[in-house]
Amino acid sequence: MDIGYLIREHLTSPVQAQQFETLFTIGNGYVGVRGLLEEDSAHPTFDSTRVHGLFNLAEGDLSPDLAPAPHWLGLTLEFDGYRFGYENGRVLGLERELDVRSASLTRRVLWQSPAGDVVRLTFERFASTADEHVLALRVSGRVLHGAPRVRVCGGIETRVSLPSGYNHWQPWKTGSIEPDAIWARSQTTQSGYTLAMAAALVTDLDAVPSLLADGAHPQVEFGAALDEGQTFTVTKLVTLFTSRDSADPLVDAQAALSRARQAGYDALYAAHCERWGRLWADSDVVLEGDPFLQQALRFCIYHVLIAAPQHDDQVSIGAKTLSGAGYRGHVFWDTELFMVPLLTLTQPQLARNLLMYRYHRLPGARAKARANGYEGAMFPWESADTGDEVTPQWTLPDASGKRIRIWTGELEQHVTSDIAYAIAQYWQWTGDDVFMRDYGAEIVLDGARFWASRVEWNAAEGRYEIRNVIGPDEYHEDVDNSVFTNAMARWHLQTAQQVWAWLNERHPERAATLGRELSIDQVALDRWQDVIDRIYLPFDPERRIHIQYDNFFDLKPVDVLAYQPRVASLQSVFGYEATRHLRIIKQADVVMLMALLGAQVGDRDVRLNNWETYYPLCDHGSSLSPAVHAWVAARLGKLDLARELFEHAAEIDLRDNKGNSRDGIHGAACGGLWQALAFGFAGLHLTAEGPAIDPHLPAGWDRLQFSVRYRGERYTVTVEGGEARIERSQP
Amino acid sequence: MDIGYLIREHLTSPVQAQQFETLFTIGNGYVGVRGLLEEDSAHPTFDSTRVHGLFNLAEGDLSPDLAPAPHWLGLTLEFDGYRFGYENGRVLGLERELDVRSASLTRRVLWQSPAGDVVRLTFERFASTADEHVLALRVSGRVLHGAPRVRVCGGIETRVSLPSGYNHWQPWKTGSIEPDAIWARSQTTQSGYTLAMAAALVTDLDAVPSLLADGAHPQVEFGAALDEGQTFTVTKLVTLFTSRDSADPLVDAQAALSRARQAGYDALYAAHCERWGRLWADSDVVLEGDPFLQQALRFCIYHVLIAAPQHDDQVSIGAKTLSGAGYRGHVFWDTELFMVPLLTLTQPQLARNLLMYRYHRLPGARAKARANGYEGAMFPWESADTGDEVTPQWTLPDASGKRIRIWTGELEQHVTSDIAYAIAQYWQWTGDDVFMRDYGAEIVLDGARFWASRVEWNAAEGRYEIRNVIGPDEYHEDVDNSVFTNAMARWHLQTAQQVWAWLNERHPERAATLGRELSIDQVALDRWQDVIDRIYLPFDPERRIHIQYDNFFDLKPVDVLAYQPRVASLQSVFGYEATRHLRIIKQADVVMLMALLGAQVGDRDVRLNNWETYYPLCDHGSSLSPAVHAWVAARLGKLDLARELFEHAAEIDLRDNKGNSRDGIHGAACGGLWQALAFGFAGLHLTAEGPAIDPHLPAGWDRLQFSVRYRGERYTVTVEGGEARIERSQP
Repeated sequence: MDIGYLIREHLTSPVQAQQFETLFTIGNGYVGVRGLLEEDSAHPTFDSTRVHGLFNLAEGDLSPDLAPAPHWLGLTLEFDGYRFGYENGRVLGLERELDVRSASLTRRVLWQSPAGDVVRLTFERFASTADEHVLALRVSGRVLHGAPRVRVCGGIETRVSLPSGYNHWQPWKTGSIEPDAIWARSQTTQSGYTLAMAAALVTDLDAVPSLLADGAHPQVEFGAALDEGQTFTVTKLVTLFTSRDSADPLVDAQAALSRARQAGYDALYAAHCERWGRLWADSDVVLEGDPFLQQALRFCIYHVLIAAPQHDDQVSIGAKTLSGAGYRGHVFWDTELFMVPLLTLTQPQLARNLLMYRYHRLPGARAKARANGYEGAMFPWESADTGDEVTPQWTLPDASGKRIRIWTGELEQHVTSDIAYAIAQYWQWTGDDVFMRDYGAEIVLDGARFWASRVEWNAAEGRYEIRNVIGPDEYHEDVDNSVFTNAMARWHLQTAQQVWAWLNERHPERAATLGRELSIDQVALDRWQDVIDRIYLPFDPERRIHIQYDNFFDLKPVDVLAYQPRVASLQSVFGYEATRHLRIIKQADVVMLMALLGAQVGDRDVRLNNWETYYPLCDHGSSLSPAVHAWVAARLGKLDLARELFEHAAEIDLRDNKGNSRDGIHGAACGGLWQALAFGFAGLHLTAEGPAIDPHLPAGWDRLQFSVRYRGERYTVTVEGGEARIERSQP
Repeated sequence: MDIGYLIREHLTSPVQAQQFETLFTIGNGYVGVRGLLEEDSAHPTFDSTRVHGLFNLAEGDLSPDLAPAPHWLGLTLEFDGYRFGYENGRVLGLERELDVRSASLTRRVLWQSPAGDVVRLTFERFASTADEHVLALRVSGRVLHGAPRVRVCGGIETRVSLPSGYNHWQPWKTGSIEPDAIWARSQTTQSGYTLAMAAALVTDLDAVPSLLADGAHPQVEFGAALDEGQTFTVTKLVTLFTSRDSADPLVDAQAALSRARQAGYDALYAAHCERWGRLWADSDVVLEGDPFLQQALRFCIYHVLIAAPQHDDQVSIGAKTLSGAGYRGHVFWDTELFMVPLLTLTQPQLARNLLMYRYHRLPGARAKARANGYEGAMFPWESADTGDEVTPQWTLPDASGKRIRIWTGELEQHVTSDIAYAIAQYWQWTGDDVFMRDYGAEIVLDGARFWASRVEWNAAEGRYEIRNVIGPDEYHEDVDNSVFTNAMARWHLQTAQQVWAWLNERHPERAATLGRELSIDQVALDRWQDVIDRIYLPFDPERRIHIQYDNFFDLKPVDVLAYQPRVASLQSVFGYEATRHLRIIKQADVVMLMALLGAQVGDRDVRLNNWETYYPLCDHGSSLSPAVHAWVAARLGKLDLARELFEHAAEIDLRDNKGNSRDGIHGAACGGLWQALAFGFAGLHLTAEGPAIDPHLPAGWDRLQFSVRYRGERYTVTVEGGEARIERSQP
């Protein structure tokens, strides 16, 4: 065993505090709250809190943002006039920990004021999963030395801003409910969503609260004398509604605050924990033998769970979840191909909500297809609330003022198949025929219509082609015949055929309706078959490999593996323009295809050849890449390499190995880690008899156990001591 | 299992880079080299390298320092004029790791110059354990992108300084041997030690070396054109001799350099590793089930091994080993009671060297006794090369100019017993009668003479007392009847009786000589017995506890446990003066006595009472404390608490939980960790039949295995799966 022989220093970064703000995000599928410190009044932005669905386009901007909600974490504690904070006085002890079991963040600080008084302060916070409109934090104090007077002050800070500086809100209206409770309400400037927040500051101190009148930052304050040894608590309860979920958000927020106060922190927390107990009962993974990977798995599952809407099928999870400003909260293929599978197999109701989001966005997808001269539904590469394409066409200017044209909105079209893939996978595992009949089929079939209209006939070669696209490898834009895109389009058409046949057999009325609405007739069906038969899948018969896209091998070779280990992408090393001409792959592309379609891509030799060809070229410039590589490497029996890639995936946020965790959690990497474990190492797959496994664990993984749901029943996978089993289990 | 549920953020500190310089110290028992970066020309001090024994008193200082040797790590690499460094260009990837198996430090950097060239640089270094006068570093480069011209420059930097700024050297003489080799030589200003260093810069590049003439910093430089894809290596070989080990250090350094060049880096490294393989075969500990503790154990063993002189019995290990400037390199009881036992049981020859250091310092100890009006040998609290007391009498002035009087040199007298304890333990485990006859007995007996003269007769109480001392709990100075001090003095006299009886029976000639030289006659022996019979050991018969010292319970009580977790000592919280009056214990004191003497201190109830009394009062303001508490807690069956304290000990340097790892490794904490494991958790002890164990491991420690030597034979302890055994093993 090598454990313990190597003492490692990893690259540390000046943004580590912001990395931990991201890691320590709490949430409940309705709201996400970054791990800002309660007392931090000198923070660069108060962009702590995000609510699903509140997109807004700031004047002059190119694309909507998820508007940040008011910052509700602020709490000022003064002892004899000295404000508690790391920069004042002396931090004698400090521990902060996120407990993913209870989705709560705790910080214990032992602090000495400049006057010499010593206090222990314990901060706790959670976003209730039992009542998702309730947020709570509590500080418990104990005076260890001295007898200072304490002054407490906390409120609702509405002057929130994104790193970009854009404001998304009309001027806020604020007011008080009682001497210890306040509220704030406003509307987003362009989209017109109303948000209302109410907050109360409750204490067991003998103190009289009063209001600090500041329109933009209403606060409650109070003070009390403390004795040596005295303990006290201050609880901040906050409620939050929007016009997306309430006819009168302010009335609802005030009523909810009243209920929350009656219940009290402890009862609210108990209900929250009870719900989390059930979430973990379904979604936990036990991996013994590697504590870091065990931690990473639970961390990743947690971050998908806190971002997944529980009661809302009109919103979806952005690439950075609700934990940061990155990608403006937009939804990519990251959701369907990386995050949804974890939910499909462990929390199917949550997966269904996310798929319904796409169903409700079909009008946008159809509009995009029409605008581009195609039929059917062409989903946007980046999606927000309307379903329109919201990919910005330009990057923000760099230091020299230069901007780069972003083409993915126009050219990265595989997302339509990716959504169909998630729907088919959901249907297979859950057997949710009602969903398929009423919603899923329409997405799959209208997407198939898009592809049938999208392909281009090459008469000289006698084949269908798809030209001018971007595949998963985004370093190479405007390519022809991306094998991933073409193969997934073909798979999509085949799946549409199966769905259509099933619908006609089981639900002929729905088939008739859809056939009429989507113009699915024999001509259309013949076209689908013809495309399936004659679409071009670039393949080199001599090397027996797929070709990533036409002329890929004309690119200048680069010894990519020589650049490992590395935190920066090679695109950032060589520059955007130069990289277009280099044989460097941003992320799993042919490898991604093998992950999704397995043996359908080719026999084992072809898959091994593909691996040997493409793995050495990938720089993992995207966080989506390492887990997919781990998954495929595990299936190909390359266990040492699979473990190395799995560790790379596990470190993305916990060790910030892409250097940008401050922008938010890499949600796709989180979901990908679970898939690499379940589908890769455990070899989980469906057979005619139900779920089956084919596990291959690296040395040192002593025990693996997790559960999945298949058609309403729970199956538990256990691999230990050379034995493996999958069994129906309770409940 | 809770592993993986909690994501922790620990207090990070701005001095983390300096912490890692300490952690990444390499060494070979002759020289220690902190983990400074080769290219770091803007370092606060070039205090990288320490050689055992080179103490020097700077003019105007209060106490000697271990003088820092020239900084030999420097290597400048320029690519097309751009100097490699983290502040220049861009660090694309970075990994640095210490491999304690091979006592070598490796750093892999992927770096892009401001001109766009990309190079991979791998730095390796070691201090040869096969030939301790040889130091080596090598950088292997590979040009991944571009074709820059490289310029390399490296030499011997003699402008070294301690953080205090004192200079310890006469002006350096420097010169060249060949175009690619240089030397430097000087003498310490006060003590007159000569040190000579020679260095060669060897490369496989087609380059012509030349000398950069700078008297204080002689360097070799060369340049070469590089092609894309080209690899190259630059090796820096350095040799080092002092007048302590050579009649002509410069001649020897030059000859050794010539031999090292002939051998080459690879052969030197292979010989070094071969020796380390043997060291680990004897000293390794396997602890499965907790990777962090496994790492910490090996880390701690490593740091004791690289500090222990292999071939020199005139030097000893300072409190901060050779890894930092803390405590000026001085030797405390830390060596005998914390570090020596690990060596006594796993590398007895190294333990013997350290004990011989004390033997050679007997004249200093006798002089100290005489000067204080006592007989025999009174060892200094802080010891350097002469054996005189070198504890500085004052702290350095703080910001306000205030200094504090340091009393330990006068009052902390238990060190004399501590040395005797290490000698007795060494003798018991090794059976090295020759050592005992020729050296050990003299130390033990002359120390006993000191105690017999030191005790004070209290006629009113009819007992011997020891007044005006400092016990291990240094927060309370000038106390009377420290139970640790008194009990260890009593133990010392008893041990002296046994040694004297053995000597008379087995080696009557040596007994006669010593009896004559040390005036051990019947009067003296009667006095020893009388002191043993009537020395006062403060004890409360009602509470059945020992009393740490007279009037200890008059101190103002403090709820010390309420101040956990904490990085600062409570003395630093309340201030030096206030803490003297508070019931806060700096470190294991009565608990330390229980660790050393076990059941001799009292029955199990008394020991439990002592624990319940003193454990809650200890703030672990000394790094020596947690491991000793873990050891005693494990023996008392308090396994959860024992594990917590053991983890506290394990984190001292690896997680810098005392906040001062930059000053050097806490050598006593390292040795203490091993003892807590061996004597505490494994319950290792000697019986009439030889070594025996009585293990109690915390839950989750799946397997523990380590070896010890007993009278020349190896015994292996194995605890796993509820079974435990100790067996004679090969070799």
